[in-house]
Amino acid sequence: MERISIIENFFPKNDPALLQKAEDNLPTLLETELVPVSFAAPTLAPGETVRWDFGTHCVGYLTLQLSFSGSHPDAPALLRLRFAERLEEFMEDASAYHGWISKGWIAEELLHVDRLPFTVSLPRRYAFRYLECTVIDTSRKFRLVVDRVWVRAVSAVDPTRVTPLERTDPKLCRIDAVAIKTLAECMQEVFEDGPKRDRRLWLGDFRLQALVNGVTFRNFALVKRCLYLFAGTRFPDDRIAACLFTDGEPAADDTWFSDYALLYPVALAEYLALTDDSEALRDLYDVAVAQLDRALAMTDADGIVNADFVDAAFIDWSPGLEKTASTMGVLLYALPYGRVLAQKNGDALRDAIYAEALERGRAAAKTRFWDPAKGVFVSNGQISPASQIWMTLGGVLPEASAKGALCRLLSEPSETPLVAPYLHHYALEALLSVGKTDAAMEHLLSYWGGMVDRGADTFWEIWNPEAPDASPYGGTIVNSYCHAWSCTPSYFLRNHLL
Amino acid sequence: MERISIIENFFPKNDPALLQKAEDNLPTLLETELVPVSFAAPTLAPGETVRWDFGTHCVGYLTLQLSFSGSHPDAPALLRLRFAERLEEFMEDASAYHGWISKGWIAEELLHVDRLPFTVSLPRRYAFRYLECTVIDTSRKFRLVVDRVWVRAVSAVDPTRVTPLERTDPKLCRIDAVAIKTLAECMQEVFEDGPKRDRRLWLGDFRLQALVNGVTFRNFALVKRCLYLFAGTRFPDDRIAACLFTDGEPAADDTWFSDYALLYPVALAEYLALTDDSEALRDLYDVAVAQLDRALAMTDADGIVNADFVDAAFIDWSPGLEKTASTMGVLLYALPYGRVLAQKNGDALRDAIYAEALERGRAAAKTRFWDPAKGVFVSNGQISPASQIWMTLGGVLPEASAKGALCRLLSEPSETPLVAPYLHHYALEALLSVGKTDAAMEHLLSYWGGMVDRGADTFWEIWNPEAPDASPYGGTIVNSYCHAWSCTPSYFLRNHLL
Repeated sequence: MERISIIENFFPKNDPALLQKAEDNLPTLLETELVPVSFAAPTLAPGETVRWDFGTHCVGYLTLQLSFSGSHPDAPALLRLRFAERLEEFMEDASAYHGWISKGWIAEELLHVDRLPFTVSLPRRYAFRYLECTVIDTSRKFRLVVDRVWVRAVSAVDPTRVTPLERTDPKLCRIDAVAIKTLAECMQEVFEDGPKRDRRLWLGDFRLQALVNGVTFRNFALVKRCLYLFAGTRFPDDRIAACLFTDGEPAADDTWFSDYALLYPVALAEYLALTDDSEALRDLYDVAVAQLDRALAMTDADGIVNADFVDAAFIDWSPGLEKTASTMGVLLYALPYGRVLAQKNGDALRDAIYAEALERGRAAAKTRFWDPAKGVFVSNGQISPASQIWMTLGGVLPEASAKGALCRLLSEPSETPLVAPYLHHYALEALLSVGKTDAAMEHLLSYWGGMVDRGADTFWEIWNPEAPDASPYGGTIVNSYCHAWSCTPSYFLRNHLL
Repeated sequence: MERISIIENFFPKNDPALLQKAEDNLPTLLETELVPVSFAAPTLAPGETVRWDFGTHCVGYLTLQLSFSGSHPDAPALLRLRFAERLEEFMEDASAYHGWISKGWIAEELLHVDRLPFTVSLPRRYAFRYLECTVIDTSRKFRLVVDRVWVRAVSAVDPTRVTPLERTDPKLCRIDAVAIKTLAECMQEVFEDGPKRDRRLWLGDFRLQALVNGVTFRNFALVKRCLYLFAGTRFPDDRIAACLFTDGEPAADDTWFSDYALLYPVALAEYLALTDDSEALRDLYDVAVAQLDRALAMTDADGIVNADFVDAAFIDWSPGLEKTASTMGVLLYALPYGRVLAQKNGDALRDAIYAEALERGRAAAKTRFWDPAKGVFVSNGQISPASQIWMTLGGVLPEASAKGALCRLLSEPSETPLVAPYLHHYALEALLSVGKTDAAMEHLLSYWGGMVDRGADTFWEIWNPEAPDASPYGGTIVNSYCHAWSCTPSYFLRNHLL
């Protein structure tokens, strides 16, 4: 399921003043040295392989201290290194991957070591728990000895500084710990979506990371930095990009996800609620409300988001998902946050406009999508959990009426099931919004608990219990197994459920 | 045909005073920037390949200045680089090589480029004329652009400083130029055997390089450095190793070639004849004569080198070659140089011993190897060109008698033909020693001229016109096509033939 946006001659609009404030909030990364849990300096002949387990997920820089046994090395040692977040990845054949995202993401390196003893420090950052080293060749005169292996692991935060959950179900404690580890690994110079792949600031992921950060690390400088980055490099017409490149001069990607853009005012309002940062309100207000204004401008005569807007929505990786109701739901979900911003900024006119748009939009959505006979929301003929979730979050029906449809669709098989943990987050949010606390807890335990049951140290980019080997990219070898949008159990456990 | 020496717990005997004098003669390498002869910054999609021709053989460090076209890069670019001294090498499949020397010598690199634009400088030195760059993958959002490619080429000498041959056959001028280029490429911090592979100081190659250097670059400091290195790190029993490791703390390899060791006093005597360096005579005399003394101690009751000595001889890569006569010939060839050293050093006793050993050895060799009925030298039942060459160079028969056997064996097919250019050198030396100047010139033109006819920019490690794809290593992909022991045509042309 390819999802690629290419805009010819795209030049993002960069605002130096905003980018400078982003730079002012650049974190100093914490460094920790990690070594394999069990290590006995191996002597390796050509063809031999050794694997190490670092005991936990690491994001960082690998160093191998190498020497030899036998005669003086008379040829380069040729090594292949493979990195894996999960041990299962070593079963995959890199050469068999022909998916639609780059083979460059496959975490392996080919190294020539011309001189021994030698200490090799890889310049690239890797995300992994397991490391495999294969000696492709030495010469017949010597064998390679690995004297020491270590990782200089990096993160903007220290996960051990968050007080662990206690006095509750051990499974929930474990889920919380894995979620916090996931978030910590993704907190680098920006909130990355995943440290293995992309390594970029994605808006949909960011809003969820900021939520969890608010109840754990409370590193608001990094949230501020990212809010300024999104505003500081945007589309020429002020749309906020779905993701940014921040390695080098910050640059908006030429990808716009209409639903993600609506989460910018949400994330800003949530940040302000926690920090009361008036400078940020002043600097970022215009860009934030511009996202809502554009969405309202892209509604049809009935007040429903138009086809162009829907086509640009992400919502989920589910193939075939009809997204009109969901995307409309995101708009209705975001408008109240827009009102909060407008009120904070003394913008009574916009507050009134958003209030009116919300009321009109909810009524229009009810008319367009609610099927009272079936008791479900129907989006252009399709009944999906996604539509129920976002119509519920959009407040289209009173709590009691939405509840039934939501619970039924989340428990029944669907042709367009939830795929990404990102949408599972909103399923929980929706359940809690209609008071279904038990169902939310059950969903959390079964979905995120399912990853924990399969040995997750960090939560995954993709997890479909019905199709454990699914990948939206045409091959699981490029899936990310530490992914920001999966880290929200800690938000629910610490803020709502316990 | 594997040829590997492994001595358990081998610790070379290093002499700090000698190694310090070697270090004092470390050359400063000359650097030249080389670019492809024809270059138009290509834009490469995944799967696309481009090749560049640098117009001449280079030894050095590659830099690629990379950028992109299309959207901002959203994934690493994954590149494969392959280097070739000859264009034909690109037809070879690296994965099919399973020979007995390391796959690590195959000249290719796999590169991840995480950020673009970026300038990639490879830390490893490569020897090549042609470079191939394949984009294995980018993402669908961008293509890789190669803006510029250059090589920082290195050598201890500048081949343009040697006056080219003139007023003679253009083919001979070309052979001379190729030979000088070959030598220049191999003159780095030591006289390397080949800049692609091994990159080490081999004694047999060194003696030939020093010969050619004497009539071309006259860089005697580098010769002195290498003479001191060979003496400065040797076997614990004072044998000189077949080769040294000089990248890092100098270290003798645990390989002893009995014939190579005999060439150390030869090379020293030749160096002294050109420089009159009394310090070198004083410092190196003992080690030089020790090589001859050991050979004499390893002769049997008749004065012929014993089986252990013969087993340790290199002579040539020819499989099945019976080496007793050849190895005895090397001893007889070296003894007169030993006498020169003894005389220079006022060591009358040794001079007398060597004179007596020479006379006795020649007589013994004539008795043992000369078949008057057949008019050839026979080594344990085998008639080979190698035996004729070395018995001739050893002066076993008067010039007139040796001449016939030598010329016949060099012109007839043999089951043990000459393989390496190294032995071809001694064939020429033998022809000249018996006054066969025309035959020597003809051999030079046909053998080295054959490489030139096939487009050689530098002379090759291996060249057998009857088997152009031969490799002693189980695969031509690891053959070296710029190899020191092939550079001697310039010595013959400049010293003897023209």
